[in-house]
Amino acid sequence: MGKSQRTFVKAFAPATVANVGCGFDVLGFAIHGPGDSVSATLSDKAGVRIVSITGEDGKLPYETEKNTAGLSVLSLLKKAGKEHIGIELRIEKKMPLGSGLGSSAASSAAAVAAVNHLLGEPFSQMELLPFAVEGELAASGTPHADNVAAALLGGFVLVKEHNPPDVIPLPSPPELYCVVIHPHIEIQTRRSRQILKKEVLLEKAIRQWANMGALVAGLFREDYSLIGRSLHDEIIEPVRSVMIPGFQGMKKGAMEAGALGCSISGSGPSLFALTRGESDAHRAGEKMGDVLKEIGLEFDLHLSEINRKGAVIEEER
Amino acid sequence: MGKSQRTFVKAFAPATVANVGCGFDVLGFAIHGPGDSVSATLSDKAGVRIVSITGEDGKLPYETEKNTAGLSVLSLLKKAGKEHIGIELRIEKKMPLGSGLGSSAASSAAAVAAVNHLLGEPFSQMELLPFAVEGELAASGTPHADNVAAALLGGFVLVKEHNPPDVIPLPSPPELYCVVIHPHIEIQTRRSRQILKKEVLLEKAIRQWANMGALVAGLFREDYSLIGRSLHDEIIEPVRSVMIPGFQGMKKGAMEAGALGCSISGSGPSLFALTRGESDAHRAGEKMGDVLKEIGLEFDLHLSEINRKGAVIEEER
Repeated sequence: MGKSQRTFVKAFAPATVANVGCGFDVLGFAIHGPGDSVSATLSDKAGVRIVSITGEDGKLPYETEKNTAGLSVLSLLKKAGKEHIGIELRIEKKMPLGSGLGSSAASSAAAVAAVNHLLGEPFSQMELLPFAVEGELAASGTPHADNVAAALLGGFVLVKEHNPPDVIPLPSPPELYCVVIHPHIEIQTRRSRQILKKEVLLEKAIRQWANMGALVAGLFREDYSLIGRSLHDEIIEPVRSVMIPGFQGMKKGAMEAGALGCSISGSGPSLFALTRGESDAHRAGEKMGDVLKEIGLEFDLHLSEINRKGAVIEEER
Repeated sequence: MGKSQRTFVKAFAPATVANVGCGFDVLGFAIHGPGDSVSATLSDKAGVRIVSITGEDGKLPYETEKNTAGLSVLSLLKKAGKEHIGIELRIEKKMPLGSGLGSSAASSAAAVAAVNHLLGEPFSQMELLPFAVEGELAASGTPHADNVAAALLGGFVLVKEHNPPDVIPLPSPPELYCVVIHPHIEIQTRRSRQILKKEVLLEKAIRQWANMGALVAGLFREDYSLIGRSLHDEIIEPVRSVMIPGFQGMKKGAMEAGALGCSISGSGPSLFALTRGESDAHRAGEKMGDVLKEIGLEFDLHLSEINRKGAVIEEER
């Protein structure tokens, strides 16, 4: 591949649902709608600089080494042997932080996608993963690839190993719809990890890996009934759901509306529900929203197909 | 379907490997070679009688209500509304008891397959499962469907629920070969269950369900490398393998010979290894046998493709 003539690339990466039911820590998927855009501009001055961040009320650091997008790009440039070049990053947050929808992952994925395209695509989308994981590591303290893999690759992804990542893209059945509801409350990721017990009952773990195998089979077979029968989490959800007001009511409402399954997105407070077809998704979303309205909590509601594209180039010149 | 004119049917069901790596309690597959034959003969005298059992040194009960094959047939006849008919069962054990290769499951599966055919096949192979599970329940005290599902259906099977069974047949990649080695020692299934801890570390359970999902994906994709990367069991194998003399040496030998994975079959003492292609299977089997020869243990060695047929009719008139 010859030298790229581009001087400006803007990429978008979507919001993602991680910890999908029985797939705690290992299964994620991407949705349409919310996400982040990151633009990369070549500069004569060596080094990676973050020159603007919008849409986040000043909560994210401008120092490249402390910013997940910045760190991801540094990691990419190092591997590409391009540490000498100059890049300006502009980050547009188009989704809320701390929602359980992979906000930092979307920035990291968009940043590496933009810079990779700027350099003439020395890396495949899959090869970009380790760089984005390094950025995530800085954000959360532990390397987690489930959000970032879904944000980069789109569709359902199974993360067998986080660092270095061993990620298996899974099929996304065509009629699968997703509802995501984001109640406007804050949950600290660290706290939501602390309340988990270090040990689990073997019999529950067995049911979890049976469901995990069955869910993967359901995705391959496009067997919506099997997907529904497998979307259970008896280990994490019972512990974490108590931190989310209205959780039981929302889940009950979604299931009554015909959802295949419903659980916590990431470490919350967002919930996701998967449905077969758009109309069930609408009904499930409505039911979930009704519960939050009743307890007086504001929320965002997103309905979409599974996003099969992942990170995409929006603009270049 | 009209009334069957048959008066005699003999069926065969194969030996099976359960607890396949990360799929403890939920994943099994069938092999070629060892297995049991059961014949069913219509009789004028109402009731189910076991009239002969061969190949097991008198260890199995002739009382229908205490014999797994007998119980399975009683359960079938009850559901079919045929409790009034007379059936004589002849059981030919062609595989050792207590080997970890699903001996009682093979008898149950062959028995229900034979009687179902005798009756003109009122049930599909999948519909026969609950009957065979009832027989297994009597044998082991807990309902376990992994051996019996593989013995009936063939191929790889994922058992999402044991009783009533919810079983998902999985693809069996064409180049997959299996080595089973059965050291001639005895392990009590009950004891091998007792030594398991009731709780497991969450981080290990997470790796187990990541591997489980990845293994299922590997089977669907015919991705032998992914199958190999996923065939790990960090939870059960470390505890149970200490009961099997030479386990570590056999596993090391199999892996050095190119096996994709190697672990305990059922609750032991047999080991299985999966390979890509026949020649690796031969080399793995040789290496495993060498270890047992060195410590002076006799053994049986079986090499085969995955058995995709399950229970089959051998003879009828």
